[in-house]
Amino acid sequence: MSHIDYAQRVNQHLDRYLSDQGSLTEVMRYSALSGGKRFRPVLTYTVANIFGTDLKLADSSACAVELIHAYSLIHDDLPAMDDDDVRHNQPACHKRFGEAQAILAGDGLQALAFEVLTNDSSLSPQIRIALLQSLTHAAFEMAEGQSIDLSVVDKSIDIDTLKNMHQKKTGALLSCSVNLGALISDQCCEQDRQILDQFSKDIGLAYQIQDDVLDVLTPESKLGKKQNSDVDKNKPTYPALLGLENSKSEYENLYERALSALNSLSVGATQLQQLTQQLQNRSF
Amino acid sequence: MSHIDYAQRVNQHLDRYLSDQGSLTEVMRYSALSGGKRFRPVLTYTVANIFGTDLKLADSSACAVELIHAYSLIHDDLPAMDDDDVRHNQPACHKRFGEAQAILAGDGLQALAFEVLTNDSSLSPQIRIALLQSLTHAAFEMAEGQSIDLSVVDKSIDIDTLKNMHQKKTGALLSCSVNLGALISDQCCEQDRQILDQFSKDIGLAYQIQDDVLDVLTPESKLGKKQNSDVDKNKPTYPALLGLENSKSEYENLYERALSALNSLSVGATQLQQLTQQLQNRSF
Repeated sequence: MSHIDYAQRVNQHLDRYLSDQGSLTEVMRYSALSGGKRFRPVLTYTVANIFGTDLKLADSSACAVELIHAYSLIHDDLPAMDDDDVRHNQPACHKRFGEAQAILAGDGLQALAFEVLTNDSSLSPQIRIALLQSLTHAAFEMAEGQSIDLSVVDKSIDIDTLKNMHQKKTGALLSCSVNLGALISDQCCEQDRQILDQFSKDIGLAYQIQDDVLDVLTPESKLGKKQNSDVDKNKPTYPALLGLENSKSEYENLYERALSALNSLSVGATQLQQLTQQLQNRSF
Repeated sequence: MSHIDYAQRVNQHLDRYLSDQGSLTEVMRYSALSGGKRFRPVLTYTVANIFGTDLKLADSSACAVELIHAYSLIHDDLPAMDDDDVRHNQPACHKRFGEAQAILAGDGLQALAFEVLTNDSSLSPQIRIALLQSLTHAAFEMAEGQSIDLSVVDKSIDIDTLKNMHQKKTGALLSCSVNLGALISDQCCEQDRQILDQFSKDIGLAYQIQDDVLDVLTPESKLGKKQNSDVDKNKPTYPALLGLENSKSEYENLYERALSALNSLSVGATQLQQLTQQLQNRSF
């Protein structure tokens, strides 16, 4: 299956899962099913697939990481947070439904993310607990990362503080997306897991540095959100700290290291390497 | 152990658990450790205790329900939601730390609630999954209930809609608090579980009706929050729909039914009955 097939696959599962969730259904669907690259679930499926794992076992994990991501976008866009009015080329959730329903939709999506994993009876309780350990930790770090992000607005910080913030805000859930694919795969040995863990950290950081660079270079129509939004908010960014060219080299090097590490896996990783290259070459 | 001992017990565990959670530690502790009746964890401990269950097995459940409750209070108090400035006789979280950090502290507390259950290695994976099924469901219903609550402001609704809203907003987590105590108790049979389930629904509804009545009757200094806050917000309440005296009879009858149902349990339930009576007789 291609990455597009994986994105469609998770969309189908999310669509079904969010079809009947009471009074929050409409607002949750508006945000969670409005597009987006589905990068996190695609990672989960791709990792599962290179180990020959039945993709049915990956569906709940793929949904769970996307639900956490969807909730985080809704809360991040709120006026008190990043105050972004446009997301995925449509009004942000709070612009369409008001702040209260947006906050609650995010809260509900977080609960559902854990519920979908908890209730997946095709996985043993042991595996489910391992998945939940990874996801609860990542979800908490993501909130903490956003908290650090907001606390450093208008401040000058060093590169290590910026890295730590991004590792939590963006990296933790990306690592978790890889990790869940590994945890449900019988054929993934401990050494594979360690390689994938480092791989996921490298692409997580690369992805964020690249995001900072693209935020400067890409017009709003392509980004699906406002251009230069970080700079406008006086947030520290990689281009601001390292310059644009150095930032590019930094993320290119991280992607290269991530790609080459995959050669040491006990299975062929072509599909995961292609996905990584696709990320590396993205323009928004 | 008395109910006060249980409250102290959960406070100690929460204090330890929230001692080192990175940059969100201070804001989470401010809200989660600022007081409150600890009614939900006390319920969990009391149920576990009447079945002779080692209370160590109940600590993670007790913390988890209180963490969910704490997160919900922070989000409910936000300006976009109930807009309450005072909680537990101190400035509400967003008044002290700003809205952004308050939203994130709530988000973080929700993740931690699931994490504390997930990581409790004194319980089997099977039991942990059963606990998480109950808690993820309750947490989602709570968000949905609050969503309904906000959508009916300024509207006239019937008593069934009001009951459904309260069952989700308040009842779901109360039922879950009882349910978790039952799930970790080997001596709790299926019939016991059904009795406790009905008991928890009755006291959940009674508690909310009583809250509405106390909101009208109790001065701010005793409530720890603003008096008449629901009426001021044009929220439908039981006293508004049924009148004050009928509302009192309604919750008294529910408490009485709950108390008498406990006589059918396979174990002595004196401690749980005392707790119920204490609730019934509370003045704030």
